Amino acid sequence: MGRIVPVILCGGSGTRLWPRSRAAKPKPFLPLLGERTLYQDTLARCSDRGEFAAPIVVIGEKHLDHARAQAADIAPDATFIVEPTGRNTAPAVALAAHSVDPDDVMLVCPSDHFIADAEGFRDTAVAAAKLADAGWLVCFGISATAPETGYGYLRRGEALEGGYRVRKFVEKPELETAMGFLADGGYAWNGGIFALPAGQFLDELATHRPDMARRVEEAHAAAQRSGSCLRPDHEAFAAIAGESIDYAIMENTDRAAMVDATFGWSDIGNWNAIYDHRKPADGANVIAGQGEIIDSQGTMIDSDGPFVTVVGVSDVVVVVDGDDVLVASRDAAQQVGNARRSRHQ
Amino acid sequence: MGRIVPVILCGGSGTRLWPRSRAAKPKPFLPLLGERTLYQDTLARCSDRGEFAAPIVVIGEKHLDHARAQAADIAPDATFIVEPTGRNTAPAVALAAHSVDPDDVMLVCPSDHFIADAEGFRDTAVAAAKLADAGWLVCFGISATAPETGYGYLRRGEALEGGYRVRKFVEKPELETAMGFLADGGYAWNGGIFALPAGQFLDELATHRPDMARRVEEAHAAAQRSGSCLRPDHEAFAAIAGESIDYAIMENTDRAAMVDATFGWSDIGNWNAIYDHRKPADGANVIAGQGEIIDSQGTMIDSDGPFVTVVGVSDVVVVVDGDDVLVASRDAAQQVGNARRSRHQ
Repeated sequence: MGRIVPVILCGGSGTRLWPRSRAAKPKPFLPLLGERTLYQDTLARCSDRGEFAAPIVVIGEKHLDHARAQAADIAPDATFIVEPTGRNTAPAVALAAHSVDPDDVMLVCPSDHFIADAEGFRDTAVAAAKLADAGWLVCFGISATAPETGYGYLRRGEALEGGYRVRKFVEKPELETAMGFLADGGYAWNGGIFALPAGQFLDELATHRPDMARRVEEAHAAAQRSGSCLRPDHEAFAAIAGESIDYAIMENTDRAAMVDATFGWSDIGNWNAIYDHRKPADGANVIAGQGEIIDSQGTMIDSDGPFVTVVGVSDVVVVVDGDDVLVASRDAAQQVGNARRSRHQ
Repeated sequence: MGRIVPVILCGGSGTRLWPRSRAAKPKPFLPLLGERTLYQDTLARCSDRGEFAAPIVVIGEKHLDHARAQAADIAPDATFIVEPTGRNTAPAVALAAHSVDPDDVMLVCPSDHFIADAEGFRDTAVAAAKLADAGWLVCFGISATAPETGYGYLRRGEALEGGYRVRKFVEKPELETAMGFLADGGYAWNGGIFALPAGQFLDELATHRPDMARRVEEAHAAAQRSGSCLRPDHEAFAAIAGESIDYAIMENTDRAAMVDATFGWSDIGNWNAIYDHRKPADGANVIAGQGEIIDSQGTMIDSDGPFVTVVGVSDVVVVVDGDDVLVASRDAAQQVGNARRSRHQ
């Protein structure tokens, strides 16, 4: 078996965490749940060089400075594939596949998720890598704990050594369907984490998306290298039709597998999720920055400067970031991305 | 009959309208309900020099600049009694009484109330002044429209020419009592507006508060005059025990009268009152400054700069002022004064 090479994807924009998450410094690079950023936590989970090779970070040019600076202490051996423009996850992973050996296993990790149990993650990753080494394209199936309609679901199929085949992929179901999945028990969330044999991944790409495969190969072959950065050819890369790894590969291959992941995962998708992680055991109020909460329960303040006073308003989130103030009910936290778009149109 | 001299009292701090109303620029000097400030509206209601003499503004030193600047266009003939320190309304009115002729009638007006019908106010003021000229100390009885527990109440007594005697003063009743007053119909709110015969007022003061009367006389006799300003002697004035005109005089005199006032009065006591005045006929949301309100009803934004986005939070007020952000339910608007005190301790 080759190496396990972490491939850290930094394309998430985190618009539902506006106004803290912004185009210039999006969600992965913010210390939302502690002193380290989600991106740093992602690097740290793969920092045991006995198990994992040096990571490859796939990053847009405009966030490269954040990615390099924040990796300096945790993964000084990281290399950076600098995308000239975003083309979704399939081309990003394909660029990484060209940068490793064919018998390496890529451990594809989004950089903006929270994982509570880093050791559990490592064990699962190593198990998934073994399955990948045996010729499977492996998804991480997160134990579904709620009928989420914003996630993709994986249907468990027949058992394999250390996992299962994936019988079916279901994208963002209706609520009723999601409730059925939860009751059924045979479904897991598709967490966007994968263990993929590099050479086989490129073969599958050539089979299912030959155009994409050719253009990625061109972009990588004509890439500019400087220090720890590799910059794919702009023209070839920009010509790719962007597509997710799920749509382009996983739903088409007959070698899709999954492992059960029980390491306390959250995509920290909105401010309500942040509240859930920050709140004390008694479910009380949360203040980050300067503020005071009076006659209110389940309310969170997150201010980068101004003093926020909340009087008699429960279950809301108040976020102050520069010249923006957001006041959202925790129930409506999902809609904040729309507010952000409206604000910037 | 002598002149009707408006005496404009500027001592209100408006703490429940924090953070917009602050010690440095309190409620009277803010354009809360239109382009003019409440103080300017107060001056404008008395600007017909056919009915009213030039006004006397009683003001603290630290707000004198606001008071002069904002009077420049509306009442360029105003004079200013500059209090070295606040001693409540009785000494303030007594200082004014020493600055007019004994047979003048002082029309005492708080500078931080809203009055919808300026013409109605003028007619009531002229009627009250006639009653005052006949030897009565006249309160303005505001038609009670709700069982307010934060106001004083006047009980109507026997009819007089153009008004009534006041049978009883009741300070801030319990809710049940206030509901009884409302049902009874014989009670009105004490709006803090008075028509007072100047000489007689000083006589009553000498009778009921001889110590205060003497010290005010000393402070006025030793006052410094410069231009339109009169500055009472600091030492003599500071030695006064502060007391309201209601407690010191009105509740003690046997010449207390009242007129019915139906000119659309509000003390604009808190942010909920501001919302009520600003809201459109359909009871919808209100935005002053930059902001957007999504999936919310009965919500108001008032921002001095930052863009405020509210998502899914109804019946709240969001106020941004400098380095302070207030988020208060309209129901809890009364408590904002406490939040402010807490913020500044």
